[in-house]
Amino acid sequence: MTLIKQLNSQDEFVGFYLLKELDVKQTNGTPPKDYFDIVLCDSSGQMPAKYWDVSSTDKETFFPMGLVKVQGTVLTYRERLQIKISRIRKTEPDDGVNITDFIRSAPIRPVDLVYAIKQAMEKIGDPEIRTIVSFCIGKVEEKLMHYPAAKTHHHAYFAGLAYHMVRMLELGEFICKQRPFLNPDLLQAGIILHDIAKPEEMIAQLGIVSEYSVRGKLMGHISMASNWITEAAIREGIALDSDRVLALQHLVLSHHNLGEWGSPVQPQTAEAVALHHIDALDAKLQMVEDALDTTPETEPWTPMIRGLENKAVYRTNIPRAALESY
Amino acid sequence: MTLIKQLNSQDEFVGFYLLKELDVKQTNGTPPKDYFDIVLCDSSGQMPAKYWDVSSTDKETFFPMGLVKVQGTVLTYRERLQIKISRIRKTEPDDGVNITDFIRSAPIRPVDLVYAIKQAMEKIGDPEIRTIVSFCIGKVEEKLMHYPAAKTHHHAYFAGLAYHMVRMLELGEFICKQRPFLNPDLLQAGIILHDIAKPEEMIAQLGIVSEYSVRGKLMGHISMASNWITEAAIREGIALDSDRVLALQHLVLSHHNLGEWGSPVQPQTAEAVALHHIDALDAKLQMVEDALDTTPETEPWTPMIRGLENKAVYRTNIPRAALESY
Amino acid sequence: MTLIKQLNSQDEFVGFYLLKELDVKQTNGTPPKDYFDIVLCDSSGQMPAKYWDVSSTDKETFFPMGLVKVQGTVLTYRERLQIKISRIRKTEPDDGVNITDFIRSAPIRPVDLVYAIKQAMEKIGDPEIRTIVSFCIGKVEEKLMHYPAAKTHHHAYFAGLAYHMVRMLELGEFICKQRPFLNPDLLQAGIILHDIAKPEEMIAQLGIVSEYSVRGKLMGHISMASNWITEAAIREGIALDSDRVLALQHLVLSHHNLGEWGSPVQPQTAEAVALHHIDALDAKLQMVEDALDTTPETEPWTPMIRGLENKAVYRTNIPRAALESY
Amino acid sequence: MTLIKQLNSQDEFVGFYLLKELDVKQTNGTPPKDYFDIVLCDSSGQMPAKYWDVSSTDKETFFPMGLVKVQGTVLTYRERLQIKISRIRKTEPDDGVNITDFIRSAPIRPVDLVYAIKQAMEKIGDPEIRTIVSFCIGKVEEKLMHYPAAKTHHHAYFAGLAYHMVRMLELGEFICKQRPFLNPDLLQAGIILHDIAKPEEMIAQLGIVSEYSVRGKLMGHISMASNWITEAAIREGIALDSDRVLALQHLVLSHHNLGEWGSPVQPQTAEAVALHHIDALDAKLQMVEDALDTTPETEPWTPMIRGLENKAVYRTNIPRAALESY
Amino acid sequence: MTLIKQLNSQDEFVGFYLLKELDVKQTNGTPPKDYFDIVLCDSSGQMPAKYWDVSSTDKETFFPMGLVKVQGTVLTYRERLQIKISRIRKTEPDDGVNITDFIRSAPIRPVDLVYAIKQAMEKIGDPEIRTIVSFCIGKVEEKLMHYPAAKTHHHAYFAGLAYHMVRMLELGEFICKQRPFLNPDLLQAGIILHDIAKPEEMIAQLGIVSEYSVRGKLMGHISMASNWITEAAIREGIALDSDRVLALQHLVLSHHNLGEWGSPVQPQTAEAVALHHIDALDAKLQMVEDALDTTPETEPWTPMIRGLENKAVYRTNIPRAALESY
Amino acid sequence: MTLIKQLNSQDEFVGFYLLKELDVKQTNGTPPKDYFDIVLCDSSGQMPAKYWDVSSTDKETFFPMGLVKVQGTVLTYRERLQIKISRIRKTEPDDGVNITDFIRSAPIRPVDLVYAIKQAMEKIGDPEIRTIVSFCIGKVEEKLMHYPAAKTHHHAYFAGLAYHMVRMLELGEFICKQRPFLNPDLLQAGIILHDIAKPEEMIAQLGIVSEYSVRGKLMGHISMASNWITEAAIREGIALDSDRVLALQHLVLSHHNLGEWGSPVQPQTAEAVALHHIDALDAKLQMVEDALDTTPETEPWTPMIRGLENKAVYRTNIPRAALESY
Repeated sequence: MTLIKQLNSQDEFVGFYLLKELDVKQTNGTPPKDYFDIVLCDSSGQMPAKYWDVSSTDKETFFPMGLVKVQGTVLTYRERLQIKISRIRKTEPDDGVNITDFIRSAPIRPVDLVYAIKQAMEKIGDPEIRTIVSFCIGKVEEKLMHYPAAKTHHHAYFAGLAYHMVRMLELGEFICKQRPFLNPDLLQAGIILHDIAKPEEMIAQLGIVSEYSVRGKLMGHISMASNWITEAAIREGIALDSDRVLALQHLVLSHHNLGEWGSPVQPQTAEAVALHHIDALDAKLQMVEDALDTTPETEPWTPMIRGLENKAVYRTNIPRAALESY
Repeated sequence: MTLIKQLNSQDEFVGFYLLKELDVKQTNGTPPKDYFDIVLCDSSGQMPAKYWDVSSTDKETFFPMGLVKVQGTVLTYRERLQIKISRIRKTEPDDGVNITDFIRSAPIRPVDLVYAIKQAMEKIGDPEIRTIVSFCIGKVEEKLMHYPAAKTHHHAYFAGLAYHMVRMLELGEFICKQRPFLNPDLLQAGIILHDIAKPEEMIAQLGIVSEYSVRGKLMGHISMASNWITEAAIREGIALDSDRVLALQHLVLSHHNLGEWGSPVQPQTAEAVALHHIDALDAKLQMVEDALDTTPETEPWTPMIRGLENKAVYRTNIPRAALESY
Repeated sequence: MTLIKQLNSQDEFVGFYLLKELDVKQTNGTPPKDYFDIVLCDSSGQMPAKYWDVSSTDKETFFPMGLVKVQGTVLTYRERLQIKISRIRKTEPDDGVNITDFIRSAPIRPVDLVYAIKQAMEKIGDPEIRTIVSFCIGKVEEKLMHYPAAKTHHHAYFAGLAYHMVRMLELGEFICKQRPFLNPDLLQAGIILHDIAKPEEMIAQLGIVSEYSVRGKLMGHISMASNWITEAAIREGIALDSDRVLALQHLVLSHHNLGEWGSPVQPQTAEAVALHHIDALDAKLQMVEDALDTTPETEPWTPMIRGLENKAVYRTNIPRAALESY
Repeated sequence: MTLIKQLNSQDEFVGFYLLKELDVKQTNGTPPKDYFDIVLCDSSGQMPAKYWDVSSTDKETFFPMGLVKVQGTVLTYRERLQIKISRIRKTEPDDGVNITDFIRSAPIRPVDLVYAIKQAMEKIGDPEIRTIVSFCIGKVEEKLMHYPAAKTHHHAYFAGLAYHMVRMLELGEFICKQRPFLNPDLLQAGIILHDIAKPEEMIAQLGIVSEYSVRGKLMGHISMASNWITEAAIREGIALDSDRVLALQHLVLSHHNLGEWGSPVQPQTAEAVALHHIDALDAKLQMVEDALDTTPETEPWTPMIRGLENKAVYRTNIPRAALESY
Repeated sequence: MTLIKQLNSQDEFVGFYLLKELDVKQTNGTPPKDYFDIVLCDSSGQMPAKYWDVSSTDKETFFPMGLVKVQGTVLTYRERLQIKISRIRKTEPDDGVNITDFIRSAPIRPVDLVYAIKQAMEKIGDPEIRTIVSFCIGKVEEKLMHYPAAKTHHHAYFAGLAYHMVRMLELGEFICKQRPFLNPDLLQAGIILHDIAKPEEMIAQLGIVSEYSVRGKLMGHISMASNWITEAAIREGIALDSDRVLALQHLVLSHHNLGEWGSPVQPQTAEAVALHHIDALDAKLQMVEDALDTTPETEPWTPMIRGLENKAVYRTNIPRAALESY
Repeated sequence: MTLIKQLNSQDEFVGFYLLKELDVKQTNGTPPKDYFDIVLCDSSGQMPAKYWDVSSTDKETFFPMGLVKVQGTVLTYRERLQIKISRIRKTEPDDGVNITDFIRSAPIRPVDLVYAIKQAMEKIGDPEIRTIVSFCIGKVEEKLMHYPAAKTHHHAYFAGLAYHMVRMLELGEFICKQRPFLNPDLLQAGIILHDIAKPEEMIAQLGIVSEYSVRGKLMGHISMASNWITEAAIREGIALDSDRVLALQHLVLSHHNLGEWGSPVQPQTAEAVALHHIDALDAKLQMVEDALDTTPETEPWTPMIRGLENKAVYRTNIPRAALESY
């Protein structure tokens, strides 16, 4: 069984892979013949592939996001590696392969991430706040196990949303210790709620967003989460004019900081200011970490990163020499 | 009884006025003495006034937005008219004066405006949409009778909000006839709902906004109205995933058009595009009309108008010569 | 005779169409052979086509915007329909086909649109204003019968400019009734003049703009129309310092509202403010209507619309249920 | 005769000055008494002054921009020098003083500036271009003798506009020699015409702009000059579709470079690009030179300059040590 | 000894205070008399004061930022407390008062802050990086004991700069543990160096910035620090093309993130991205904390905060109810 | 020997050319065959070419930026000329061809440009300023002989940077004569230093920039030049707090004028204001001249020019008719 990352030119190999993309194309000959232009991937990376002798049955058999068993040869085409597929079939139960082994995902198990989020929820002392947070988690709990945090921007992989929340909760706990004037109930609740409606804003499978939902486009996840808070209050018998409800609404509504970034109001409580900057810090650092991870170690520069003013990031390669461990 | 607009220099007069502003100031003498720096107004305009011999009782008697009977003389001070008050007292029931006669208000009676809004609501054929509109009107019906549409921007007077709605409903009806592809139920509902939460966003008395409410600052009227729609659906037993609920949410959320103007999403339905531009047309023309009305006819230019790119408006004074009436 | 909209896969057909686009391309064989990559259209829509056996004569015979008679077969290529042309010839007088039957155009006959514009002109009571409007219409009257209002933005079809004017004149009339402080002579004149120089700014045929003229690029239609007003005044013996001339100049110069949108001055008269917003309302709603019309009814979303903040528009599909007709 | 720049604290003096500003104010005593709050100036600078015993006659005698003879004492008030006027009268013919000796003006005589502009005009070889330039100069020739180039921005003094033109013409001549691909007829004509309508855009006296004209506000000097070119062509029998006319229109219309700076089109000919940057270079350097000139030599920083991104300019004070003279 | 915060209306008191502001003004009487318009402060707050009988000696005795002993009475003037000073003298050595007891300062002793910074420096394992950091600290070590971090924006008090550094170092240590791909040597060095040149950019006394230095205005602290790194390398014999030198330069140059915020390049290394967001998080939270601290507890809203999009911050007042301590 | 500009369709020819671009591509046949997709150029222009029968040796022989001898035929492919290469070989010493004859370069010899720059340096009278300028020239003197001024923006050819400097020095000399308040030592030094670090910011060969250096991306040429000034001062024994050093730093740091254009500070000395505008004038005019030069004379419009607001430039073609030569 060969990982894609380990394939070299001229290798002949057999293995299981995920059919991430598949286009039916035609050769330029007369008459033109169909072929598959494919991207194969596993958790170690991805590689383009061609399958030249496509039958009508093949076109009805193979689709993106399916697992396949492939026999092929690695060629070099325009200075890049490419697979020439000689045989391909869909996997069968007896193959014993599981699609989640072939996709990129958060470095912590989804079940542990959701557990950590719930632990943070339990630590919220204020009962109204905890009840609202609990109600909202309930609406998406199943999706929290696998949804990404965004389409491409950051944490765009299996369970990326929950991973983003957990990292922010760690930061939130640290900041609350550093600055006791902050209310930890509000800040941690804000961290859990700020992107809670993203699973309804986007349509995702296996951590990959295919598109935004109609509701996502017409309302946006910020307004959706704001309405969930209202729904939670009504359903759980909390007064709509409660100052807790208002404080949570404000945290969610303002967390993008500026109108041009999608927030109808700007942060005007201490916790709302903290929430925005913790979100920015975690999201931007994750963009950098993800970009460095997925760039070959021999490349000094990552591709350009849209969320970082469209700048590429340089791998400094100065060895960590700190006298004490961090 | 003399209207402020009719006062001339050297006039001695007695009359009833509204104490619009009052500051207690001190003269520069030693010891300094208290005096009142006042603005008196009635529905015809306003004029500064001074009351020089202020007692301790006076300071506990007179406050802004109270009606007073004044005896005074008109002087010219730095080229502007100013009243020197010789006697002043609060009005009494027997005076038979009514505060609403002293303030600026919409040119149509509040009761007629609210009636017109309800008529438009009744014409909405879709029962879900009509129910939601009715629920939201119910939350502010009493305030619709007197609230302004904004603090200073436009329709900033008694019943200005209802007047803005009614004018927009007329335009909405015309546009729906001109362009039958628009759904009049949605457009007219959007017109009624788009600013419906403004009475909760601002604190106003007699058509004058003193400040924004805490909820107004932390949520904004757009998100408040969006949450009212959710509340209406829950309370009235309408499914939260109804496409009517979503269409109304979108109308409200997008009506400011751009993120930097406060809308978390941009208009993406035909009716939402129509709503934004009908709102802009009505608000901007009203700003012009109000500015021209409150500028003396002898002045060719109004003061600068913030909502019009901070430009002043020029009074063209070319007589209407159209062969047919418009 | 088969409309393009009605063609299905595998159909063999003969019909008349407009050759909207034609590129001579080469196959990848050795030696390469020429073929035509074509777009055929009629008033119902358009479809790509290939003609494989191109002779030297063909290359001198067929050009875009010509009518042709085509015999062909409909194939499916990469999931889209495409015509394989087996025979093609130019139309002849005896075919009895008229190019205007094959293009997209305003829903009202050009002759009726121009008549409506002239009626509105006749209703202008002020003789100076009417004379200037008449002179400017005279410069482009023939082109008003067929020019579009823009290259791609809005009303981009046969007689689209005149259609935009007529719709705006209807709105102008309504607004003048709603707000009697507006001078209808000025507003209706401004509506007729605001885009009057567009036919000199763009080079168009059959309602399709191929490019901007040199004068169009170096002056822009706003400054051109402004200069036409000066020319009209001189030629017709109207004083250049007339306040009517100035008011019309201002209407034309300011109608794009902001410098970054091309207006050297911002609206500073009541009618100029009205003109800008009536223009915006009509243009934006037409963009939406056109996008919905040309998107298959089965598609919930139109393509992205540049003039609407690059947003797509969603087809709400909530049936009109208004109790009274609009 | 004492220059204002030479007055020191405690000086008693008599002299002629220009009454640049005059406000009638009242003391705080009871009853309040009128006094004059005055700014006196001559060509060397200006100083505030007070005249305490104002009679009714005085208020009808003294107005801004009049010459006066003053007897007074210099006091220090809040760390600044101030004149206490003991006697004041208007000047009489016998005094032999001339108002132009008391105002700030270009460092070259107006008659020489206008002569230089006309010389540049005569050097234009193309007859159509020269004719149009001549016609436009004719419209403002008298005002060119004294108009400033702007209200406050740059060259805001007597004959500042002509001075700006002459300096730009020198630069234009140099650039045309350095870059022979530029057409000097067009560039020098563009320099003369670019601000030619400013005297009609602003109302100025003695080099000081009091306000913008109605036409200036509603059209702007750029569109006014564009229309003058059209007028020139019609009156002088030049075809309106001449490419010279178009090239000159473009130079004028585009010289502010960007829409937000007032140009409806951006520079699209070589000469238009040159014109914009020569204009910017001359205007910005003049702002710096004027600011340094009017800041006391002991001050290292000028006040903030709006046209220079609101920055103050620092006086470097490094002596010029170039081996050869520049 | 009475703290300013404890003074109430009608109190007669004696105490030591800092003369924070002092203006010599004149009464409006004839002849006008000099008085002092004063702001007195101590570490608990500040209050306006008047001293009416000012002698010539007084004007040469009292200046801002001097300590004084005051006997006075508290009055209410226009609804605010104000001190009427009856006696005032400068403090003398025997008074035993120390100016640093009267000013606002960081909540940690400067000596402890500088010690913490040096500890962090010692933990840098890479010798080149540590040497450069040490050299730069050496240039401002004495000023680190008292300089604020900004004029008004944030940490604008005694030792505010060192306090900002220490808080950021704590955050940097936490983030490096959370994300091991970051190089702690670089990040902690970047934190120490990013604002290291601020003491040369601003002129401050007792934690209060009076103005920017000439060098501060002409270079800015970012370019100054960049040049210090070059100087450090040359003086300490480190190669100028060392990748450590480049990495530190980049950290300093990019830490304001955008060109319009003063950074000539944008963050393009992982540590530079981290530095910018840690800086933003700490500065913004400190602005909020400072604003809440200096706003009376009875006020629900702070004044507007320029660094927070000019928004005021609301005091939520929801009690901290977390089950565990944070 | 045939220049590329002179090749016509059907020509058979032999000649020497520069291989500016070379891609190895594959035909669509089965099996695919390699061919070269080439761009050949000489100083007169460039033309695409195909070489169909590529051997393994060829792929190791031919690379971009190499000189080749070519035998070929000119064909027309999709309306554009294209070369079909029948024979190709690398040039040999005996061919007597020199690569610099085949590239685009400044119209003045590099040696003369560098001489002119050094002459300007010698004319700087102030010894400190001259020493710093000399030190910085020393760092890049060899590269000044061939480096372009930018990747694509302006002066993007052999010795373009030196040419830009020389033209600016001519302008600087003229402006210093026109405005004697400017210090020529500072201005001319600023002109030489402003882009002096560009050769270290970009990696270029034969006047063509292939990419930015790591240092170029992480610091930018502005900060690099600023640090060179510091280095120069230290190495040459000039005090770092010299006002000359500061003035030069400011010139370099501010010359892009705005933060969003890369300058950390804005121009705040007279010479810095002059430097920015001389730079802009020269760069923009060169963009226009280069675009017109490389556009066929029969084309009235150049391609769009990014540095000119993305506008194309129109060739006015009005003959120069000035009565005197310029």
